[in-house]
Amino acid sequence: MALYVMKFGGSSVGDTERMQRVAKRIIEKQDEGHDCVVVVSAMGDTTDDLIDQARLLNPNPPAREMDMLMTTGEQISMAMLSMAIQHLGREAVSFTGWQAGFETEAEHGKARIRNIQPERVLKAIGAGKIVIVAGFQGITAEGEITTFGRGGSDTTAVALAAAIHADTCEIYTDVDGIYSTDPRIVKCARKLEEISYDEMLELANLGAAVLHPRAVEYAKHNNVRLVVRSSFNYNEGTVVKEETTMEQGAVVNGIAYDKNVARLTIRGVADLPGVLAKMFGELATAKIDVDLIVQSGVLDGKADFSYTVSLADRERALAVMESLRSELPFSEVTSEIDLVKVSIVGAGMVSHPGVAAQMFAAISAQGVSIKMVSTSEIKVSCVIEAGRLQDVVVALHTAYGLDTEEQAFVGGPQDRR
Amino acid sequence: MALYVMKFGGSSVGDTERMQRVAKRIIEKQDEGHDCVVVVSAMGDTTDDLIDQARLLNPNPPAREMDMLMTTGEQISMAMLSMAIQHLGREAVSFTGWQAGFETEAEHGKARIRNIQPERVLKAIGAGKIVIVAGFQGITAEGEITTFGRGGSDTTAVALAAAIHADTCEIYTDVDGIYSTDPRIVKCARKLEEISYDEMLELANLGAAVLHPRAVEYAKHNNVRLVVRSSFNYNEGTVVKEETTMEQGAVVNGIAYDKNVARLTIRGVADLPGVLAKMFGELATAKIDVDLIVQSGVLDGKADFSYTVSLADRERALAVMESLRSELPFSEVTSEIDLVKVSIVGAGMVSHPGVAAQMFAAISAQGVSIKMVSTSEIKVSCVIEAGRLQDVVVALHTAYGLDTEEQAFVGGPQDRR
Repeated sequence: MALYVMKFGGSSVGDTERMQRVAKRIIEKQDEGHDCVVVVSAMGDTTDDLIDQARLLNPNPPAREMDMLMTTGEQISMAMLSMAIQHLGREAVSFTGWQAGFETEAEHGKARIRNIQPERVLKAIGAGKIVIVAGFQGITAEGEITTFGRGGSDTTAVALAAAIHADTCEIYTDVDGIYSTDPRIVKCARKLEEISYDEMLELANLGAAVLHPRAVEYAKHNNVRLVVRSSFNYNEGTVVKEETTMEQGAVVNGIAYDKNVARLTIRGVADLPGVLAKMFGELATAKIDVDLIVQSGVLDGKADFSYTVSLADRERALAVMESLRSELPFSEVTSEIDLVKVSIVGAGMVSHPGVAAQMFAAISAQGVSIKMVSTSEIKVSCVIEAGRLQDVVVALHTAYGLDTEEQAFVGGPQDRR
Repeated sequence: MALYVMKFGGSSVGDTERMQRVAKRIIEKQDEGHDCVVVVSAMGDTTDDLIDQARLLNPNPPAREMDMLMTTGEQISMAMLSMAIQHLGREAVSFTGWQAGFETEAEHGKARIRNIQPERVLKAIGAGKIVIVAGFQGITAEGEITTFGRGGSDTTAVALAAAIHADTCEIYTDVDGIYSTDPRIVKCARKLEEISYDEMLELANLGAAVLHPRAVEYAKHNNVRLVVRSSFNYNEGTVVKEETTMEQGAVVNGIAYDKNVARLTIRGVADLPGVLAKMFGELATAKIDVDLIVQSGVLDGKADFSYTVSLADRERALAVMESLRSELPFSEVTSEIDLVKVSIVGAGMVSHPGVAAQMFAAISAQGVSIKMVSTSEIKVSCVIEAGRLQDVVVALHTAYGLDTEEQAFVGGPQDRR
């Protein structure tokens, strides 16, 4: 007998029929002899509908009242799911975030969890009940209702699993698990049996939006065993944990990509002390996240820099650069779009030299030029032209031996769901 | 400068456009120099929609989870209204029932208020904010969310007005005020300027569903000055308070009716001590409310009884009677429907003998026979055949001088709204 936290996202509880399916799924888990604590998101499009209505009344709705509004979505879900379970003859009880003991910082819309006091949850489990907790929400010391921001229900699930010492935290979603790359691009993408927290973080940050990075960080920090699996079938999911066994000696576990890339290039910057600190300090002050940075060699006391930001930040980053022109002389600043960042991710990479070289070779073999490169212990990223994304990802997937033979025959991603 | 509690029902905040109108209305009140605490119901059909969805998942949904579900309706309303007000440039803050300090008994779906600790509300008023409170809800000592049942938002408004010593509690609704009778039946019904709590209670209980009886009782007990008025125009409403000035010497202020009436008749009951106590004790145990009771004269040690119950309780009342047949001998029990109870209501009645006789005469003049009669200090009720309701109400309205001359010319109730 084990203690499970089971998290169901918005599409898993999108309508009353799916809600009933989820209720049955939970009861099956209980029938196997386990205790179940369930975390739910708002049903389907509820959250977006509420946001739309709010904007009709106030195009710039105040964050505190948005939290008041948004938390109702999960409260509706949890009550409905509890009713569905009770209709099937089991005892269940639902709790809002504050009832489940989630204490947060006072930042509306993106509050961080400060503390969890799960006494009511534990007492209800002790009484043999299925406990349902509203995801994505908590309360401040002053009794103000807060939300965690995007992906907040994943964080609720992981944090609760840590607080009640659950054996496993299952994240039910609309895909079977974590794939070696996007199945929409590579037909023979492989579902991973296991992945480490760090690899998951790299994949999540790079666009595999199955698990929110904050939840993965929380899981890593508290060593919570995660399983990502589908709520629509009974396939084994992907286990996310600290130590993973190398899959068939694979050095690279996944190929990620990110289309949300703009590059800025600043030419002829005077090579003085503190230039870089000033430039990127101003970007940080403007809350612009910089990803890759490349500095070319210095010539005649002048250097060229390139860096990437998200597409949404491009205009603002250009403005920041222009504002620096007087105190930080440079000859010109340009920006570029229609780019994509492709990354290979693998915890085994660190002990295998030549992995990066293999990547560059595979990309070159496609006749694609590499515009920027960045490496970390478990990741190598290259920025290339967006139009060649598919060719490059397919080539890398093959080069690192990730193709699933069986699935290479059967085709499209829909067959795997 | 005064402190107002303003309560807006579901139809007043039925969509975002109406919500904006309510926001403006509140700001106008503030512009007059007043402090405003607003109580809102759920938007339009939200509550009914939630109930419908819940029943799909559980035809007999547990009361605790229903409270979890239903309270989201008011939480959405209050957040939206706060946003609308803030968009118009005023400071506003919304509170759920528990945040506003509503402590209740632990009976889900029909909890009674035990205590109100309005510190957060008072502090926000002190800071110059418009305070918006979710109607219809509170919290138990154990932290369980509860609702007050039908008409609960009226009760929230009145109880909060008492707790914060508001000068006036305004109930905004879709009618202009309290009418002398149902304008759908009598075209020249008169809007009352004033009415006493007791009269309002009789009218509310008898079908004029503008104000919930529990809220009126609460207002009477705490001497809260109520004003019932329309949220769609600026007409003066009806003031509900303890002492009212007699309107133009009127003895009768209103004509009420109740179609939800069934009559049971038990014939040939042995006239033994404790018979009545036994009979009505058993009905009370079965939670059947008995309204009028009439006993005919005793003949040969046998008596006949008639009493009325609601239509929904008729079958159960018959069953209770049959169950008593062995220990409480009677010759037969019958039941009757297609009845209506018509009542005249007026606080001045007690000092004017002959008011009841005038009623009986007016009904007889219509050729309608009176099946049962009941009197109290401020009310006389007669049960008659349902088919003659309109004739009788119109006749009584005229007999007691309640017709509005002006409106007798202009016609239908829609002109008055």
